Amino acid sequence: MLQVGVIGCGYWGPNLIRNFQLLNRSNVMRVADLDMRRLKHMKALYPTIDTCTNYMDIINDPDIDIVAVATPVKTHHRFALEALTAGKHVFVEKPLAASVAECEDLIEIARQNQRKLMVGHTFLFTAAVRKMKEIIDSGELGEIYYINSQRLNLGLFQQDINVIWDLAPHDISIILHLLGQEPLSVSAIGSSHINPSIEDVAVLTLKFSESLLAFIQTSWLDPDKIRRMTVVGSKKMMVYDDVQPTEKIRIYDKSVEKPEHYDTFAEFQYSYKYGDIIIPKITGDEPLRTELRHFVDCIENDEQPLCDGNSGLRVVKILEASQQSLAEGSSHISLR
Amino acid sequence: MLQVGVIGCGYWGPNLIRNFQLLNRSNVMRVADLDMRRLKHMKALYPTIDTCTNYMDIINDPDIDIVAVATPVKTHHRFALEALTAGKHVFVEKPLAASVAECEDLIEIARQNQRKLMVGHTFLFTAAVRKMKEIIDSGELGEIYYINSQRLNLGLFQQDINVIWDLAPHDISIILHLLGQEPLSVSAIGSSHINPSIEDVAVLTLKFSESLLAFIQTSWLDPDKIRRMTVVGSKKMMVYDDVQPTEKIRIYDKSVEKPEHYDTFAEFQYSYKYGDIIIPKITGDEPLRTELRHFVDCIENDEQPLCDGNSGLRVVKILEASQQSLAEGSSHISLR
Amino acid sequence: MLQVGVIGCGYWGPNLIRNFQLLNRSNVMRVADLDMRRLKHMKALYPTIDTCTNYMDIINDPDIDIVAVATPVKTHHRFALEALTAGKHVFVEKPLAASVAECEDLIEIARQNQRKLMVGHTFLFTAAVRKMKEIIDSGELGEIYYINSQRLNLGLFQQDINVIWDLAPHDISIILHLLGQEPLSVSAIGSSHINPSIEDVAVLTLKFSESLLAFIQTSWLDPDKIRRMTVVGSKKMMVYDDVQPTEKIRIYDKSVEKPEHYDTFAEFQYSYKYGDIIIPKITGDEPLRTELRHFVDCIENDEQPLCDGNSGLRVVKILEASQQSLAEGSSHISLR
Amino acid sequence: MLQVGVIGCGYWGPNLIRNFQLLNRSNVMRVADLDMRRLKHMKALYPTIDTCTNYMDIINDPDIDIVAVATPVKTHHRFALEALTAGKHVFVEKPLAASVAECEDLIEIARQNQRKLMVGHTFLFTAAVRKMKEIIDSGELGEIYYINSQRLNLGLFQQDINVIWDLAPHDISIILHLLGQEPLSVSAIGSSHINPSIEDVAVLTLKFSESLLAFIQTSWLDPDKIRRMTVVGSKKMMVYDDVQPTEKIRIYDKSVEKPEHYDTFAEFQYSYKYGDIIIPKITGDEPLRTELRHFVDCIENDEQPLCDGNSGLRVVKILEASQQSLAEGSSHISLR
Repeated sequence: MLQVGVIGCGYWGPNLIRNFQLLNRSNVMRVADLDMRRLKHMKALYPTIDTCTNYMDIINDPDIDIVAVATPVKTHHRFALEALTAGKHVFVEKPLAASVAECEDLIEIARQNQRKLMVGHTFLFTAAVRKMKEIIDSGELGEIYYINSQRLNLGLFQQDINVIWDLAPHDISIILHLLGQEPLSVSAIGSSHINPSIEDVAVLTLKFSESLLAFIQTSWLDPDKIRRMTVVGSKKMMVYDDVQPTEKIRIYDKSVEKPEHYDTFAEFQYSYKYGDIIIPKITGDEPLRTELRHFVDCIENDEQPLCDGNSGLRVVKILEASQQSLAEGSSHISLR
Repeated sequence: MLQVGVIGCGYWGPNLIRNFQLLNRSNVMRVADLDMRRLKHMKALYPTIDTCTNYMDIINDPDIDIVAVATPVKTHHRFALEALTAGKHVFVEKPLAASVAECEDLIEIARQNQRKLMVGHTFLFTAAVRKMKEIIDSGELGEIYYINSQRLNLGLFQQDINVIWDLAPHDISIILHLLGQEPLSVSAIGSSHINPSIEDVAVLTLKFSESLLAFIQTSWLDPDKIRRMTVVGSKKMMVYDDVQPTEKIRIYDKSVEKPEHYDTFAEFQYSYKYGDIIIPKITGDEPLRTELRHFVDCIENDEQPLCDGNSGLRVVKILEASQQSLAEGSSHISLR
Repeated sequence: MLQVGVIGCGYWGPNLIRNFQLLNRSNVMRVADLDMRRLKHMKALYPTIDTCTNYMDIINDPDIDIVAVATPVKTHHRFALEALTAGKHVFVEKPLAASVAECEDLIEIARQNQRKLMVGHTFLFTAAVRKMKEIIDSGELGEIYYINSQRLNLGLFQQDINVIWDLAPHDISIILHLLGQEPLSVSAIGSSHINPSIEDVAVLTLKFSESLLAFIQTSWLDPDKIRRMTVVGSKKMMVYDDVQPTEKIRIYDKSVEKPEHYDTFAEFQYSYKYGDIIIPKITGDEPLRTELRHFVDCIENDEQPLCDGNSGLRVVKILEASQQSLAEGSSHISLR
Repeated sequence: MLQVGVIGCGYWGPNLIRNFQLLNRSNVMRVADLDMRRLKHMKALYPTIDTCTNYMDIINDPDIDIVAVATPVKTHHRFALEALTAGKHVFVEKPLAASVAECEDLIEIARQNQRKLMVGHTFLFTAAVRKMKEIIDSGELGEIYYINSQRLNLGLFQQDINVIWDLAPHDISIILHLLGQEPLSVSAIGSSHINPSIEDVAVLTLKFSESLLAFIQTSWLDPDKIRRMTVVGSKKMMVYDDVQPTEKIRIYDKSVEKPEHYDTFAEFQYSYKYGDIIIPKITGDEPLRTELRHFVDCIENDEQPLCDGNSGLRVVKILEASQQSLAEGSSHISLR
């Protein structure tokens, strides 16, 4: 039974606690938070768990094997660093840290201490994203032309990070996973309406090649909750609508083909193919459960997590470049 | 009864013919096309209309008052110019012409000949856009924060223009109309997949001020037909979904307010307001009918059309700058 | 070229005229209506067609081969009877006539005069219903358990017939076609709200066997336009949503299976199977075009129409029994 | 703090336990079930709760104030009766009992013992149904013409009761609550496909007056999850779609009015009014929490619960009559 300490019991921490408890292979020993009310609430829900306001009570506890960090982004590096240095395996909520340099530092420390470092890109553990990955890898869609993603909602405004750092890690981690490659460059455009220094609406463009682009639109200011990703391929197209309760993925047998030969420009005709639409059955556990089970597996079997430090680094590299692009009039920032 | 000649009987021309006929105040005398099959089909549908392959038979006919041009964009300038010079009132399908210079030329010739020049920004004559304009002008939405527009579909690939010139004139003309102002700059990013030299996917960003942006996403390569515009205001938000048969507009009483004062950063709380959603009743004629009736009214009453040459020019200015932005790595092209 | 006369130019007549004209194998010579304004309007749309207020001008014209009847139900028998007696082939809008006796009379007269009699059950000629028939006949759904149909809308109140006679012929003709059998009995329940003597809301139940039922719900008083039919089979289930513009049919790979054996009542478990959903591509002409082409084919090749007099009779038999059930406290009226 | 004992920890019992615990005014002392695995699971979730296999350990415990019964329907009467006799307040899951006689017995025993008896018609405590009740009572819809309800789904087949007893109590309790009156008669039609003796598809018709009907359609054999109720009034119409996550109620300003006078039958025209659609904001706690809080309030303040024994009896009376109607060829069974 792996013993777990959780730093941060705000928005996401309670989900980590619940799922670590339900795994039956890990046990949450102690949780830390600065807010006494949150600690009291955790104690009421889980009478057997210790609480503390000083996170060092977790770092210094030799019985604790895993430290899970669910605090504001700017503190990720400090908590993860101390935990790794103390010989703990570390699970950090996304994004891994607040800068490329911080991420690289954590990766190096984890390597030196031979501890597992994992970042919580939870969507990679959903049945829908697994299904999409499987479909793309099978070649069913043909060559991928572009990906278009929207993640829009009203609020949950963050105070320390903008909408890109808040929402886009989901889309970026999914897209990198699906395509299995990193973009050449990124550009970003956005604007602020509620807090002058924090963008609440933004569009990112990831360029993977001259023709393969991915658009990511994020907003905290949309009346509808939209989480929709379209993957357009040369043979088929796929739409992933995460807001749908059961019918999350649709595969469209629609494609456009450019004929090899044609006699005159006037005769030039593209051939369209329309066909059936398939809504594949997808099933699965709560993704966070699957994710934490994977982390426990990796610790026990000494394997590299799917979302390891490098995975977290790749996402932060794009976030950091987006920030630079915003500052430089949405210029394309090279990632190579 | 105003006599009309129509140049071009391909995709859109027949709609012009039908609606000019049904107005009861105009009569289509003659139509021109290079394709004999199209002419034959028109003759079968409207036995009383003359057909010709030489458009000069229309230009030179002294009985014709109005020339309507529904041909590929690159030919708009030539046909409209000759018709205006010959003293005809001219209706041109959107976009008005292939360049700013061409548009300016047409405006000047129309002025010199004291003829009406109108461009077919049909959406401005829909009941939905009229309702949106009314709502925005009433101040009901508060300050406009941003506009987000998507116009996606599978195909009808154009051979002489890219997806921006094909689809974005609709969104641009609607947005300029709703906001009543012109953008400071525009940037564009896109890519080509079917025809190497013609973008089939693109995103435009119009910057009206540091905080007021409008995003326009266009695609010929999407499995779904999406025509959706979200207008986010400080008081309310509005979604216009043109694909809905009857419920085209929804007004959301949702907003975010930044409190004036707060004691500590930790207490910082944005106040969200959620309220009812209203789907206003909208009714109206076929928009093209309304549009052509407006043109006939303007001719008869010697008034300036809502979509006059300057309106067409404003849209083409943005299209031309988008093209430049695409060529220059999606830099922001100033429009002032 | 078959010459056509159309009696009735109200709601549906103009559609018949347009489609007979577009077939290229039939020509509408003359149309009759009591309303001069309707005749004038038809003349404006089709300058080559003669108009008359006395339908006998159609019946007595030896050049006319086909008489199409699109008048109120109570007049169907009279017009069809005279046309058949005069040696015309006759197309009658649904329902065929106002009673079983009238239907039987028309069938007999058509037989004696060796003329074709067809009733306009247009839905049988839609691509969606053809697809459903194909799927059911293939056995893909397994044994059919029940059919549930809703046809709801706000209005188009009829003045001479109730909502059952107005709307249910569509559902009845589709269901009889899909199942290929006639019900043993029918019961009906309904009520009147706008006009005291005319039901505007009703539910029919057709019993095909002890376990195979079909429910048909009709209303002129519903805020939404709903046209939805669910066919539940032992292997798969199918939903036909006619209001959807393109995705009209969905096939669900969901079924419930009763296990053959189980040890204890407590262990009793039904096995559910969930699988993919398929939205098959369906394409096709305007159904009315297909329907009239079929009629012309049948005349030219001396074949029996799919919707012949007997088909019309089977539907009217159920309508008449429904009426009787309404009058008798919704008792089951035997149809055998 | 009221002490609670729960009999039955299968499907619904755990929800009762969780909500009694979260109320802060009640405490679950002991739960009973015949299945040791369920008891073990409850113990793991709530370490402070006692478990037992003999329900008499609850009945006989003098410290227990409330007994909640969440067992199969046929056992409701026995458990509730013993608990009431032992001086407990009793909460019973819907339906109250398996027959009218059993309900009447429980009501009488509760009266004699001066204990509260409440049945779990949870939907009455949802924000949506409260909103609907408020709207109807305000007269906004005008005279109610009819109610149409569908509750369809694939499975959760019951082994001891048919689909009417399983699903219709929800619709019946909502409809009686909304209309504030009892029906004159009920008729039912249904059929069995999976288990020969248990109807899995059924339609009920409640007749409140010659013109006011309510239709309730229930199915365990539908591919979609549909929970939709339409209330049609003379002034407005309202649709309650419980499957929608947030937009559960829509109010349509659509109505049909019969003009008082008209000159000729040919001129007879109904006037339709179309207007805006309103989706009112509805908010609220988990309904079961609200329901149990109400029960605790009633006990503490000695008030009659909204869903008291008589409320439960009214629903069972209709269920019993439906059963009789099914047995008698769907005849109308009088309820007066």
